[in-house]
Amino acid sequence: MLAIGLHEERAFDMLRGLIASAGSRLTGSPGAEAALDHMRQVMLDLGFSNVHREPVTVNRWERGTETAQVEASPQRSAVELAVCALGGSVGTSEAGIKAPVIEVRSFEELKSQKQAARGKIVFFNQPMDRTILEPFRAYGANADHRVRGAAEAAKYGAVAVIIRSLTFRRDRFPHTGLMRYEDGVPRIPAAAVATEDADRLSGLLGENSELLIHLTLGCRDFGPVESANLIGDLRGSERPEEIILIGGHVDAWDLGPGAHDDGAGCVQSVEALRLIRAVGLVPKRTIRAVLFMDEEFGGTGGRFYARAPERKGEKHLVAFESDRGGFLPLAVGLGGSPGLIQKHQAWSPLIKSLGLVQGLVSGGGGVDIAPLAEQGVILGGLIPDAGRYFDFHHSALDDLAAVHPRELELGAIALAVTASIIAQEGI
Amino acid sequence: MLAIGLHEERAFDMLRGLIASAGSRLTGSPGAEAALDHMRQVMLDLGFSNVHREPVTVNRWERGTETAQVEASPQRSAVELAVCALGGSVGTSEAGIKAPVIEVRSFEELKSQKQAARGKIVFFNQPMDRTILEPFRAYGANADHRVRGAAEAAKYGAVAVIIRSLTFRRDRFPHTGLMRYEDGVPRIPAAAVATEDADRLSGLLGENSELLIHLTLGCRDFGPVESANLIGDLRGSERPEEIILIGGHVDAWDLGPGAHDDGAGCVQSVEALRLIRAVGLVPKRTIRAVLFMDEEFGGTGGRFYARAPERKGEKHLVAFESDRGGFLPLAVGLGGSPGLIQKHQAWSPLIKSLGLVQGLVSGGGGVDIAPLAEQGVILGGLIPDAGRYFDFHHSALDDLAAVHPRELELGAIALAVTASIIAQEGI
Repeated sequence: MLAIGLHEERAFDMLRGLIASAGSRLTGSPGAEAALDHMRQVMLDLGFSNVHREPVTVNRWERGTETAQVEASPQRSAVELAVCALGGSVGTSEAGIKAPVIEVRSFEELKSQKQAARGKIVFFNQPMDRTILEPFRAYGANADHRVRGAAEAAKYGAVAVIIRSLTFRRDRFPHTGLMRYEDGVPRIPAAAVATEDADRLSGLLGENSELLIHLTLGCRDFGPVESANLIGDLRGSERPEEIILIGGHVDAWDLGPGAHDDGAGCVQSVEALRLIRAVGLVPKRTIRAVLFMDEEFGGTGGRFYARAPERKGEKHLVAFESDRGGFLPLAVGLGGSPGLIQKHQAWSPLIKSLGLVQGLVSGGGGVDIAPLAEQGVILGGLIPDAGRYFDFHHSALDDLAAVHPRELELGAIALAVTASIIAQEGI
Repeated sequence: MLAIGLHEERAFDMLRGLIASAGSRLTGSPGAEAALDHMRQVMLDLGFSNVHREPVTVNRWERGTETAQVEASPQRSAVELAVCALGGSVGTSEAGIKAPVIEVRSFEELKSQKQAARGKIVFFNQPMDRTILEPFRAYGANADHRVRGAAEAAKYGAVAVIIRSLTFRRDRFPHTGLMRYEDGVPRIPAAAVATEDADRLSGLLGENSELLIHLTLGCRDFGPVESANLIGDLRGSERPEEIILIGGHVDAWDLGPGAHDDGAGCVQSVEALRLIRAVGLVPKRTIRAVLFMDEEFGGTGGRFYARAPERKGEKHLVAFESDRGGFLPLAVGLGGSPGLIQKHQAWSPLIKSLGLVQGLVSGGGGVDIAPLAEQGVILGGLIPDAGRYFDFHHSALDDLAAVHPRELELGAIALAVTASIIAQEGI
């Protein structure tokens, strides 16, 4: 599988095709449907069995025009900030909101200035801490501002929030992501601002703390729509009801084509099955690719999958998710007990021989497969280097050019090999 | 050092400065001198001691106009190929060479068609084998065509050679690199052709094996000139004569700014010393940064360094080289006996804690420090992921945009920490 994969690098071609099939793959959008149609045809063309959609009810939200001007003084022309609505935000009126700004670094700081927040736009400007080696941890430390910032600020009478984008890089690309309102708390508009623009705004506030921002967000909620997860199998020859799942999520944020997040995981899942067929392996157990819908708005697809009627009579042994980008894969992660990893340490040299220098490690999992864990399924996943992930994450930068064909393929190969072993030997 | 390095990412700023200081840093060029001047000032500004040049006599070679047109038939307009002269090649006359082409994949194939080669341009079109996991091995398997192709072809009366560029990628950027003539064998012009253009040429030859190529190379040799290695120290407080060297090479191929090869190694060496000073460490032994001249044309600077009069009274314990690009560092490599690695395995968790997932491994070394090994010096080096290296190597693509600031910095941090330990504890 290594030689075929590296020679053909088909995962990258598939990713190009997926991206070309849909303008944006935001949950509930026509693009997401187009992507499902496209990938269904890809699976059929590759000869997968049991190719079908399983219904998922999702919520449709759409972004519209989004602008933010800083009016620093009557003498100066307005400064445009690069902003985007956070996912799930309410819009402003068409005229927008014009209000003064209060800049804070934390919920504590917000609380200590709660009187000052009334009638203002709260600007959460805490940079991701780049001295934290593990980028997901640095992200985790700040993501709360994005998710809960609007609710917290609204409690003190704020009229909108603007969040510094979650990336280590300084650039002019805003990064979106999910936000949530709280019941009983006013729903105020929430936007992200690019890091360079955040620094600029902070500088302008230093000169004039009374400046006004004119914020316009045209985003709207359209309520529930029918969508789907997409499934394709290599049917097991001896125990077809026992399933090894490999999945990613087909929906993506709408600012870019979601090449890493999670186009990569989708095409790696499909490519893994293709590689297994390409070497002529007929698995004893079923190896399944699942493209989940609606990971980004909270993992609806994963919950629907776990409880779908089609699961009756199926027994999932392991579910692998690839949703950390198509970067250089360093390890295959496996959850479950430490004893399980111990028992299967023999796989580690094999995985290392595929170029994943850490081999088999404890870890993996993901939003889409998490509901399966409640049914006792062992979770695993691909663990790539995370150093570049947030450079692109949820922004227009997450495009095909950000993906390296060979790195993407190595991930697919590792998933193919690991799933094949489990299909033959069990776990 | 980790926090300071990651926070400031100064290696990348230094790399930007180095690149801005010189148009090209080809051995013997004015740009190479400008780069030495610039980096000398950087070392002085950072407070290094013993900052000085040590003379190196190098050869100056310069590329000129370089063109290749395929004249496939009188009815069709000529097809332009993206070519570049290989380093050290003789030029053609101003009118160029116009000759038919013979395409081969190996020296064996050339030998089997030796009658056919007379009066022709030999086109070595063996793609790098992408199914080989380790890119340096795939490169090594083909590099002989570039280095010896002209000499071998000239033995059979060929008038020039064109070599398929050494990269996994299909694009229109030719990759240069050193070639060598053989005494007593005619010196014929040698060029590299971009991979897409190689495929195109191969296709055209399939249609018409009689087609002509019109090749013009304006490159010229200017003979020996005086250049230098650049040295800067953190002087050891207890055993200043014992030296831990960290180095890269300041010369670079002239098609691009040599950001990875080896601007990265230069700035990582300097940044390593800066980080050690920044945390206030006064090393017991001397830690030295060396920017070597003329690695690309055969490692002259390394040989001059090893035998320079300044070495008298100095004792080098270890020499680290960073010359595999500023990519994600995976390990610090250390040569010497297996027992040495065993003895210092305690360093491995520390190196892993800096984000280098493989920790301390057997390996390292490099062209510039190799002459020191003959004096019993232990060689080591930074071992980054090699998957992207040949995408950029020796081509116009090797520019600042190809370098990730955080990955570059992690390499500098790992070198700083490892050198510091050895400076305090010995080896």
